Amino acid sequence: QETTSNSFGNGIINSVAKDSSFSIKFGARFQSLYISNWKNSELEGFKSESSNFLIRRARLKFNGFAYSPKLEYKIELGLSNRDISGASKFTSDAPRYVLDAVLKWNFYENFVLWAGQAKLPGNRERVVSSGNLQFVDRSLLNGQFNIDRDLGLQLHHKIDLGNQVVIKEAFALSQGEGRNVVTGNLGGYQYTGRLEVLPFGEFKDYSEASLERYETPKLAMGVTYDYNDKAVKTRSNMGEYMFTENGLHRTDITTFFADFMFKYKAISVLGEFAHRDADNPIAIEEDGTPTGAVVNVGNSFNLQAGYLLDNNIEFVGRFTNVHETIAGAHFPNLNQYTLGVSKYISKHKLKVQTDISFNDNPDPGMNQVVYRLQVDLHL
Amino acid sequence: QETTSNSFGNGIINSVAKDSSFSIKFGARFQSLYISNWKNSELEGFKSESSNFLIRRARLKFNGFAYSPKLEYKIELGLSNRDISGASKFTSDAPRYVLDAVLKWNFYENFVLWAGQAKLPGNRERVVSSGNLQFVDRSLLNGQFNIDRDLGLQLHHKIDLGNQVVIKEAFALSQGEGRNVVTGNLGGYQYTGRLEVLPFGEFKDYSEASLERYETPKLAMGVTYDYNDKAVKTRSNMGEYMFTENGLHRTDITTFFADFMFKYKAISVLGEFAHRDADNPIAIEEDGTPTGAVVNVGNSFNLQAGYLLDNNIEFVGRFTNVHETIAGAHFPNLNQYTLGVSKYISKHKLKVQTDISFNDNPDPGMNQVVYRLQVDLHL
Amino acid sequence: QETTSNSFGNGIINSVAKDSSFSIKFGARFQSLYISNWKNSELEGFKSESSNFLIRRARLKFNGFAYSPKLEYKIELGLSNRDISGASKFTSDAPRYVLDAVLKWNFYENFVLWAGQAKLPGNRERVVSSGNLQFVDRSLLNGQFNIDRDLGLQLHHKIDLGNQVVIKEAFALSQGEGRNVVTGNLGGYQYTGRLEVLPFGEFKDYSEASLERYETPKLAMGVTYDYNDKAVKTRSNMGEYMFTENGLHRTDITTFFADFMFKYKAISVLGEFAHRDADNPIAIEEDGTPTGAVVNVGNSFNLQAGYLLDNNIEFVGRFTNVHETIAGAHFPNLNQYTLGVSKYISKHKLKVQTDISFNDNPDPGMNQVVYRLQVDLHL
Repeated sequence: QETTSNSFGNGIINSVAKDSSFSIKFGARFQSLYISNWKNSELEGFKSESSNFLIRRARLKFNGFAYSPKLEYKIELGLSNRDISGASKFTSDAPRYVLDAVLKWNFYENFVLWAGQAKLPGNRERVVSSGNLQFVDRSLLNGQFNIDRDLGLQLHHKIDLGNQVVIKEAFALSQGEGRNVVTGNLGGYQYTGRLEVLPFGEFKDYSEASLERYETPKLAMGVTYDYNDKAVKTRSNMGEYMFTENGLHRTDITTFFADFMFKYKAISVLGEFAHRDADNPIAIEEDGTPTGAVVNVGNSFNLQAGYLLDNNIEFVGRFTNVHETIAGAHFPNLNQYTLGVSKYISKHKLKVQTDISFNDNPDPGMNQVVYRLQVDLHL
Repeated sequence: QETTSNSFGNGIINSVAKDSSFSIKFGARFQSLYISNWKNSELEGFKSESSNFLIRRARLKFNGFAYSPKLEYKIELGLSNRDISGASKFTSDAPRYVLDAVLKWNFYENFVLWAGQAKLPGNRERVVSSGNLQFVDRSLLNGQFNIDRDLGLQLHHKIDLGNQVVIKEAFALSQGEGRNVVTGNLGGYQYTGRLEVLPFGEFKDYSEASLERYETPKLAMGVTYDYNDKAVKTRSNMGEYMFTENGLHRTDITTFFADFMFKYKAISVLGEFAHRDADNPIAIEEDGTPTGAVVNVGNSFNLQAGYLLDNNIEFVGRFTNVHETIAGAHFPNLNQYTLGVSKYISKHKLKVQTDISFNDNPDPGMNQVVYRLQVDLHL
Repeated sequence: QETTSNSFGNGIINSVAKDSSFSIKFGARFQSLYISNWKNSELEGFKSESSNFLIRRARLKFNGFAYSPKLEYKIELGLSNRDISGASKFTSDAPRYVLDAVLKWNFYENFVLWAGQAKLPGNRERVVSSGNLQFVDRSLLNGQFNIDRDLGLQLHHKIDLGNQVVIKEAFALSQGEGRNVVTGNLGGYQYTGRLEVLPFGEFKDYSEASLERYETPKLAMGVTYDYNDKAVKTRSNMGEYMFTENGLHRTDITTFFADFMFKYKAISVLGEFAHRDADNPIAIEEDGTPTGAVVNVGNSFNLQAGYLLDNNIEFVGRFTNVHETIAGAHFPNLNQYTLGVSKYISKHKLKVQTDISFNDNPDPGMNQVVYRLQVDLHL
C-alpha cells in the first residue's frame, strides 16, 4: 500500500505531470436512494402506493488537461441502470454509457471552444452537477423542460467588466437529438445561447447550498434561449420520438430559461423559470390524424431556498409549478411543495439527504406524497 | 513510468491518504473459460454436444474507506456479457452493470450498517468471491438456490465470546427483487437472517482452498433463514418473473441454508444444505390455470473437499444433489460428481483451474459430461 | 494533488512494481467525429443528404505484465454506443463491452501463447489500433473483409534471421463466432495463420503515418489465411447471422489477406488485398429457397500513402476497390477515392484529422461524397 498526499473527495487519482504535459482527476461516486410514495385517494384515503430502493446514480469521472493547460478534457461515464437507460435504434440499441466526452480548448484569451458531448448551456439546475444538489434530486421544472446534453460545438466566453461585474456568454451548435445518438441528425440543428451576469463577482454559482458561507451577497443571473430546428422528440432533444406511419413528426421547438442563484452567509436561493413553445406541438399523420404524441409546451417556475446551520445541517424548501398547456400533457397544472434536510458530512462528497414532497394536481385523485432518503458518496 | 511499492494481486491502485481521509484499492480481473459438453445418449452413445470459449467474468473493483476508517465503501462493476446480462423492463432495459455499490458504516462497537446493493448474507459458497473458488465455478446448489444480491440495508454484528469462539450475526432488509432493479418493490420486502459460529477463532472462512495451511483446525458454521414476502420470481429474488395475464403471481418464499467451512493444513472441506419452500409454488392465472412458471421448491446438498500439495496444486472433489420437488422443475433429482485440479500460481490472483463433471439424471438421456478449463487473473 | 513523472500520452497510470511483480498502464481515449454526406443524384444533382456528430470511439485500456514480465495482459473496454453495439441473443442480449481480455504468455524463447479474446492475426489495417490511423477511419476493405476479434488461443513466434531480416508467424484457433459471444461454438472452429517478413529490421509497422521518420527504408509484408469451418455469419465471424426457418445456414468460409507497410523518412505506404470465398455463399432454407442472406464473397484492394511535413501535418491519399461478386451484395464494384489531412499535435495521442471521400458505384444514383472531421485524444 502506498500513501498519497491527496485527500478524500478529490478523486481516486489526482495528479499533475512534472513536465506539465497533463493532469488527471479520476473520481467515482454513487447514490443509494430510498423512495416511498403515498397516494391521496378520495375513495381509499391516504395510502401507501409503492416503495423503491435503488442505486440512483453511479459514475466514473475523468477530467484534467492534456498536452497543454489550455486544453481540458472531461469524460463522465454512467454505471447505474437509471444512468444508462434509454437504448433505442437511434443509439445502436446499446445503453447510453457515456455522459460527457468533451474537449475544452482555450484558444484565445477568454474564449473556450468545446467539442464533443456535454451539457448544453441550459437551465442552471441542470448544469449543476447531480452531486452538488441541496435536495435529493432536481425539480420537476428540470425534469420536464431541461435540454440536457447534446453532441456538437460550444463557444464559451467571459468578460470582466471591472468592479467585480462579470458577464459570461455561451453559444452551442448541436445535433439536437440528445446524447449518445449514432444515427445522425434527423431534423435541423439545435442552437442555444446563454447570457449570465454576476454583479458581485464570481462564486460557486453552479453548486447548491451555501457551504462557502460568503461574507458578502453573491448573485448570478442567467437567461437561455434554445431553438431546435425541426425537432422530432416531445421535449426538444429529450423525451419520446414522435413517430408517424411514414417517419417522424418534425416541428421547431423553442425553450427559454431565466434563472438566478443567490448565496449569502448561510442562505442560498435558486429560482428558475422555463417556457417551451412549438410550431406544431401535436404530432400528426400525413392525413392530419393526431398520433397521440405532443410536445410539452408550457411554462414552469421553481423557487428553492436553504439555510445552513453551523453543524452543516441544511433545511431547504422548494415550490415548483409545472403548467403544460396542451391537452393530454402529463402535468396540466401541478404544484409541488418540498421540504428537505441535508447533513453535509464532508461537503457534497459525503452527505445524507432526505425530503418530502406533496404533489397537488387539478385532479385530486393524482395527488401524491413522496418521501426520499439518499446517501451520496463521491470519491 | 513510475515505480510503485505495491505488488501483484493487490490492485492497480492501492493507496491510503496521508491524512487518513480515505483509502482506495482499485482492481481488475478476468477469467478466460473453455467448456466442452458431451451427451450420454442411449441411442447415439457418448458424443460431443457443444463447446464454448468465453470471457466468463471481467470486473472492475473499487473498495476502501472514505472520510473515516469507520466508513467503508465497495463498488464492483461487471464487464463481461455473462456479468451484465439480465436486462428487462425492470432494469430500464439496460444491462446490469453494477454488482456492488454499498457503504458499510461501523457506527458502534462491533455493529456495521450496510446501505446499498450488495450480496445478501446467504449461503457461504455465494458469498465467497468468484475469484476465490477452488473449482472452475460454483456448485449447482448455489446456481439453483442462492439469494445473490439485493438492494436495502444490512446490519452485521460480531461477538467475541473469548476462548477463540466468535459469533457473527447478520440481518438484511431488502427490496426482494434482485439487483439493479429500478422499478421498485413489487410484492413485500425480503428479510434475511444469518448466524455464524467460529469455535476455533476467525480465519479465511470465505475463501476456498487451504492456501493458508493453518496449523490448527479451523471451522465456521452458519445458518441462514430468508423470507421473501410476496415474491414474484421463480427463485425468490432470482430467476424468471412469474407473469400472469393481469400482472404477476405473488407468493411468499422461504429459503434456508446451513453450511460449514473447515480448513486444516492442506485440507479444506465445504458443505452446504439448502431448502426452499413457497406458499403457492405454481403460478396461476386468476381462473386457476397454471401459467407454466413454478417456484423451484426443494432441497439441495453440496459437499466438496480439497487437498493442496506443497507445489500449490490442489486436487478437489465435489458431490452435489439437487432435488426440486415440484413437477416441471428443471432438476427433479440430479446428482453431480466433479473432480478438479487447480494450480495456484500466485494464490487466487493467478491460477489455472480445470474440472470434469458427470451429471446423473433420473432421465439418462439428460446425462452429461462437462469439461472446463479456466485461467483467472486478478490484478 | 500529487505530481507524477509520467507524461501525456502514456496512460493515466503507468507504473511498475518495485519488486517487478506487475506493471500497469491504464489509459483512456475518445474520438469526437463529424460526418457530412452528399448524394450525387442524376435527378436532383449534388445535394446534402445527412450529417452526424458522434463520439465515435471511447475506450478504457489496461495492459502490462502480471506475476512475471513473461506474462502480459491486456483489457480494452469500449464505451461509446458504436463500440458496444451488436447485442443479440448470442451475447446474452447485452452490449459488447469487452474488446480485449487476453493473457500473453512468453513460455519459451520467442514463443508467446495468447488465451482469451483478442484481435485475430488478420489484415494489417485491422490490427493497427484505431488510435494509430492516418485517416479518420479504416478503409472499406477492412469494413467488409476484416476478421476482427475472436475467443480462443493464439501462438505467436518470431525468428531473427540475422542481417536485420525478421520473420513472424502467428496461428490462431478460435471459436469463429466473433467477440463477446456467450452461447458457444455454433459450427466448427476458425483457423487463422499469418506470416510476416520484415527484410530491413523491425519497426513500427503497426502504426500508420511516418512519425518515426526512419532514415533507411523499412518494409513489412504479411499474408493471412483464415478458414472458418461451418460459419454462420455473412462476413465469416462478423456480419449478420444467416438464420433459416430451422436454425442457421452453415458454410465454410475462407478469407485471404496480403498486405505491406512501407515507411521511409516522411513517406508511408500501406497496401492490402483481401479475398473471400465460401462453399455455399447463398443461405438457403431446407427446400432450397434463398433466405436473402449471402456471404460477401469477393475481392478488395486498398492502397494508401502519406507524406508528413516537418510541422507534423500529413497529406494522405487512398484508393479502395471493393468487388463483392455475389448478386445482392452491398458493394458490387465500388471505387472509393479519399484525400485527407492530419495534424499530429502530439503524435497519435492528440490529433485532428479530416478527409473527403468520393464513392464511385456502378449505379451512379448511389454515388456519394463523404466529408469527415475528427479530434482524437488518447491519455
